[in-house]
Amino acid sequence: MAPTGLWLIGARGSVATTAITGLLALRSGVVPPVGCVSTLQEFADVPLPEWEDLRVGGHDIVDTPLEKRAELLAEAGVVPHRVLDAVRSSLSEVESDLRPGYHPATHAGTQAEAARNLTADITEFARRHDLARVVVINVSSTEPVFPALSEHDNLGALEAAMAVPGRTVLPPSSVAAYAALRAGCSFVDFTPSTGIRIPALRTLADRQRVPYAGADGKTGETLVRSTLAPMFTTRGFTVRSWSGTNLLGGGDGMTLADAEHAGSKLASKGRGLATLLGGDVTAPLHIDNVPDLGEQKIAWDHVSFEGFLGARMSLQFTWTGYDSSLAAPLVLDLARFTAAAHAAGRTGPLASLGFFFKDPMGSDEHRLAHQFSELVEWAGTL
Amino acid sequence: MAPTGLWLIGARGSVATTAITGLLALRSGVVPPVGCVSTLQEFADVPLPEWEDLRVGGHDIVDTPLEKRAELLAEAGVVPHRVLDAVRSSLSEVESDLRPGYHPATHAGTQAEAARNLTADITEFARRHDLARVVVINVSSTEPVFPALSEHDNLGALEAAMAVPGRTVLPPSSVAAYAALRAGCSFVDFTPSTGIRIPALRTLADRQRVPYAGADGKTGETLVRSTLAPMFTTRGFTVRSWSGTNLLGGGDGMTLADAEHAGSKLASKGRGLATLLGGDVTAPLHIDNVPDLGEQKIAWDHVSFEGFLGARMSLQFTWTGYDSSLAAPLVLDLARFTAAAHAAGRTGPLASLGFFFKDPMGSDEHRLAHQFSELVEWAGTL
Amino acid sequence: MAPTGLWLIGARGSVATTAITGLLALRSGVVPPVGCVSTLQEFADVPLPEWEDLRVGGHDIVDTPLEKRAELLAEAGVVPHRVLDAVRSSLSEVESDLRPGYHPATHAGTQAEAARNLTADITEFARRHDLARVVVINVSSTEPVFPALSEHDNLGALEAAMAVPGRTVLPPSSVAAYAALRAGCSFVDFTPSTGIRIPALRTLADRQRVPYAGADGKTGETLVRSTLAPMFTTRGFTVRSWSGTNLLGGGDGMTLADAEHAGSKLASKGRGLATLLGGDVTAPLHIDNVPDLGEQKIAWDHVSFEGFLGARMSLQFTWTGYDSSLAAPLVLDLARFTAAAHAAGRTGPLASLGFFFKDPMGSDEHRLAHQFSELVEWAGTL
Amino acid sequence: MAPTGLWLIGARGSVATTAITGLLALRSGVVPPVGCVSTLQEFADVPLPEWEDLRVGGHDIVDTPLEKRAELLAEAGVVPHRVLDAVRSSLSEVESDLRPGYHPATHAGTQAEAARNLTADITEFARRHDLARVVVINVSSTEPVFPALSEHDNLGALEAAMAVPGRTVLPPSSVAAYAALRAGCSFVDFTPSTGIRIPALRTLADRQRVPYAGADGKTGETLVRSTLAPMFTTRGFTVRSWSGTNLLGGGDGMTLADAEHAGSKLASKGRGLATLLGGDVTAPLHIDNVPDLGEQKIAWDHVSFEGFLGARMSLQFTWTGYDSSLAAPLVLDLARFTAAAHAAGRTGPLASLGFFFKDPMGSDEHRLAHQFSELVEWAGTL
Repeated sequence: MAPTGLWLIGARGSVATTAITGLLALRSGVVPPVGCVSTLQEFADVPLPEWEDLRVGGHDIVDTPLEKRAELLAEAGVVPHRVLDAVRSSLSEVESDLRPGYHPATHAGTQAEAARNLTADITEFARRHDLARVVVINVSSTEPVFPALSEHDNLGALEAAMAVPGRTVLPPSSVAAYAALRAGCSFVDFTPSTGIRIPALRTLADRQRVPYAGADGKTGETLVRSTLAPMFTTRGFTVRSWSGTNLLGGGDGMTLADAEHAGSKLASKGRGLATLLGGDVTAPLHIDNVPDLGEQKIAWDHVSFEGFLGARMSLQFTWTGYDSSLAAPLVLDLARFTAAAHAAGRTGPLASLGFFFKDPMGSDEHRLAHQFSELVEWAGTL
Repeated sequence: MAPTGLWLIGARGSVATTAITGLLALRSGVVPPVGCVSTLQEFADVPLPEWEDLRVGGHDIVDTPLEKRAELLAEAGVVPHRVLDAVRSSLSEVESDLRPGYHPATHAGTQAEAARNLTADITEFARRHDLARVVVINVSSTEPVFPALSEHDNLGALEAAMAVPGRTVLPPSSVAAYAALRAGCSFVDFTPSTGIRIPALRTLADRQRVPYAGADGKTGETLVRSTLAPMFTTRGFTVRSWSGTNLLGGGDGMTLADAEHAGSKLASKGRGLATLLGGDVTAPLHIDNVPDLGEQKIAWDHVSFEGFLGARMSLQFTWTGYDSSLAAPLVLDLARFTAAAHAAGRTGPLASLGFFFKDPMGSDEHRLAHQFSELVEWAGTL
Repeated sequence: MAPTGLWLIGARGSVATTAITGLLALRSGVVPPVGCVSTLQEFADVPLPEWEDLRVGGHDIVDTPLEKRAELLAEAGVVPHRVLDAVRSSLSEVESDLRPGYHPATHAGTQAEAARNLTADITEFARRHDLARVVVINVSSTEPVFPALSEHDNLGALEAAMAVPGRTVLPPSSVAAYAALRAGCSFVDFTPSTGIRIPALRTLADRQRVPYAGADGKTGETLVRSTLAPMFTTRGFTVRSWSGTNLLGGGDGMTLADAEHAGSKLASKGRGLATLLGGDVTAPLHIDNVPDLGEQKIAWDHVSFEGFLGARMSLQFTWTGYDSSLAAPLVLDLARFTAAAHAAGRTGPLASLGFFFKDPMGSDEHRLAHQFSELVEWAGTL
Repeated sequence: MAPTGLWLIGARGSVATTAITGLLALRSGVVPPVGCVSTLQEFADVPLPEWEDLRVGGHDIVDTPLEKRAELLAEAGVVPHRVLDAVRSSLSEVESDLRPGYHPATHAGTQAEAARNLTADITEFARRHDLARVVVINVSSTEPVFPALSEHDNLGALEAAMAVPGRTVLPPSSVAAYAALRAGCSFVDFTPSTGIRIPALRTLADRQRVPYAGADGKTGETLVRSTLAPMFTTRGFTVRSWSGTNLLGGGDGMTLADAEHAGSKLASKGRGLATLLGGDVTAPLHIDNVPDLGEQKIAWDHVSFEGFLGARMSLQFTWTGYDSSLAAPLVLDLARFTAAAHAAGRTGPLASLGFFFKDPMGSDEHRLAHQFSELVEWAGTL
């Protein structure tokens, strides 16, 4: 396939750094694509961009060098030292394609100006590398819930409001989505932040004839939940309660244990379970910040269910994973699938990518096995 | 549907007693069909026998009254006291349809004579209740592994050997299967015992034009495994080890912790995992007899898997259930589905019933979600 | 020993009903004293009141008959049906010794009047049964945190304030403690409610020359924590985080998942861990209301610790118990030990009863093994 | 204190390499003594050899360089890379004090000759470094159970048999113990192998007036068990079953999953639990070899217990640790305590070191808290 761009919002974060490091390692052949979905046999005939075809750039509001970030991830057990050594020089090439991101706290001008700058960064990146197209993926920290405004319903009104000095009419994730669409790029929400989920932005995406996908990568507890819940329903059991606790270290833990930021995440996690089980299940859910865990995340779920003649039984599980190790390969998968969809002329929400998301846009299907079947079938049509 | 018989081998055991008590309770409307698969919306249009249409009889080598067994299960928390009170009188009606089972240790004559007696019991049961057909289901204790004999390959040779005084050419489960087939009945192996899985018996089944199904009800740990394993494969993870421990009380624990009896059970459990994951996974598995657990069974599994860039992660789960509560509704489901298949003229192994079994006859599909889809599709053709 | 009274605040609650039912069952010999501490060999020579010597009465603000409450506990699996049958008639005798409790929402007069009524109830109970002494134990629902008032520091000021119409200067648990002390009784705080922990009440206790003890029965997660924490410290490990989640059904779950009521409980649970480990440990803790669990409570704890050369290791545990089954025998133990202490002339906080409490009055010792040693030694001096 | 030797049997194994690397790191101050017991405040005044005072040598039957072994442990996450870098040069100094160990499969001469060589190695080591004394600690792989022979009961008979060409009258661990005693050294059994637990060797130890200790370091599951079991007994609960599963990687897993080798280990683990709980508890226990876990060991225990009025409750825990990280600091602690005991003229089994062992010689005390108290008290007398 033609050279394809992957532009990451939050390009210096743990997920992005792991994705970039991993892509370079895959390209140089020092690791097999374990944890990647798009390399499974089922997709062997789909015209996806190869690892060699992908160029990475991105925005971030911090400026820690990518190499430094990769070193920290090596300390944390996410990136093997030998992998880091193998890709160190390539990392600095990617470094040269990173640009300062937008945040209202540090940007003096209007949101319209900010968006123009972001669009220009992406456009230049595409020109510089002669890219056929660019997929923009948001992997930055989860934002606090942003209120719905009337300007969100109409593209003209939105753009007018963005041009008013001092107005913050969009959260950063939506400014990024707007800028991506203006650059003619497809957009993927890997976080629960607002991003493209604003009517006016969907209008713009349709006008630009680009596809988009999201939201919130399904990487741990929810992955297991969407696998297990159908077992209870197809076996005729009645789930009485499904309680969950998440222990997160790193910046993610700090962000998400903050109740305001957690709002969108918890809502996103809860929606799936309600759909899978029918909605009237007691389902307390917590996210705790446990800094000493570092990149690890640990989830404990306790499911209490009722069987024949009212027998009370339970299933509990503990999931121990590395957040960035779980998310990064999906980012690469999404870049490949979304690029292929764009190349094939698909537009609007890519509902068939629901397999990758906690809260799939355009789909009410949360059962993992069904999502995978749908993904395979859809990919076969590209 | 016309009156249909359910003939249970091991009719006084915990699973059978729970199934019988439960059927009577369902029939009288004192409980909803929680834990039953055949009552799900997906099967609403399938011509299955109703609870009212089912008559139950069976063989057992012990003679403890059914009511006494049901009382023990009430003590053990499997059958609520109010349910027992509601069905007590109906239990004694079923009692009158139970007959002494066959066991080589207590039977003086040839296996041919034994089989003739068993067949006669079933035939009379069908005549007495004017049944359209009878489904025979083996829910007796798991047998030790029985050696393969050359007589097993040919029906004539087998029947000749069965007529030789003093020869034990078949294990009791296979004598039961033979007798069922001779009575023109369909047969279901709910245990890992040999049962119908002998070439000569399959020949007989074909000749009698009856369907059969098995083997080994998928009620706990394996149910969860067949749900979770596809998550790992579709997400591209490499499972490195899948370790399991089962704690069982009751007679089941005593039987299965005995290495010889456990042989068939462990083999049956292991086959599925190997198929699901690809066969080269370290998978130690134990069954321990822990009498104080009573009817409860507890399974702990630890899955160690590898993700992106070699990251090592794990999932562990603990399943706490009541063995008989899990198995009994499936016995009723199998009676309904098998009767409907027989009525529809199906013969041979019912591969589409694989959803119910650890070691499905006629199928290599172990992924629970796929098994359910196949069941739904197949049932729609009845 | 002479007849001794046990007066329960919250006498119709689950803990009290289980304690009363259990005491009657122990007295009639239908059960062994499993779960009781005071019957261990270590206390064989301590002059404790025998089961036969104990008379029970109490206050409660609801009026559900004790027998009805016991039936519900039998349904919930806490009291065996055969035990209930054995003690049913004795329950109605206890019923006649229960009196309406105090709650500001239903009491029209002053708190001074309310206390006088409560005192009179206890005094009459003692006279009616010719009791040598009465131990009053608070097992009612946990209260919201009550603010500290200046009147709490001085007995005269407190009593003056209690006599002012319309003033609620004490929470119900402290009115109960006041009334108990005025009746010359020892007092035990089995909950984290304020109770006797007000300077003026301690002054009164000293003046009345009675002992008291508390607070907050150590029945589940904290019991395990106070057992395990010393393992980490004596082995030289550094605990980095200790995360906990509690799933509670029943009324307890509803009360404690309410943030305001949970305040005192979480504080009480947290203090012990900080003392045991040194105070700078990340220790998120949740209590969730999961009604379908009924009387069960389930706690999951995850301990992350550091060992030699910085190795990161973990211990996680799941505790599944019946709240009332765990608490009730301790209530009987506390009645026996406190009565013996009173008989032996002990006054002030009984620090040596710290074994029984999450937040022991008069002691900073939280290590379970040390608490037991201290209990044994102290009991030997009675 | 005067320079003291630590001579390790199995000096190139994981435990020994971690202990050596860790000692060098402690000596150079690059790590704090986390996971060490002897550095706790409680032992501040005990005359123990300092890290600077310890010299290490040892025997091993393999000849992989220590540095190579340390590198493997760094890969496995047991030794941080920065620690390895800090001690690399010192490792080669220790390397020069390692000597070939004894194994009957590779040794041509009599066991008497083998022992003489081993003794000479230790004696020269002591002379070379001018050591006041040497503690010999066996940390080699667990041996198969060795049969009791009549020669084991008498030192003269034993030595005569050892001198007979071709006879293998002692397992390697006991040859090592014999050699150590002949060199006038104290001896510590850190494994469940026979070692010094032969009457004739105890006679020799008494004659040499040296102390000894063992057996089988208490590093994981048993550590937790000896902590938790007293909780059940002091709370009056009846433990009904205590089931355990151990998943081990590395060489340890391979050795111990072999039934013959596991014999001594399982016996050693089981004895403690029986003593702690009273002996009639169902306690199935497994050790599985799960190579992909590498240095990690994972134990899952399920405790089923009975409380008040027969209520059935449970506690389950999962312990995830690094075997060598857990064992190595105890080896250093034992070197320090045993050297101090030797210096203080103690002889015979050091029962007060039971805190460190699954199967303490000279003591029936298995309760961890009591063992720690005894250790503190005893150390105060040195």
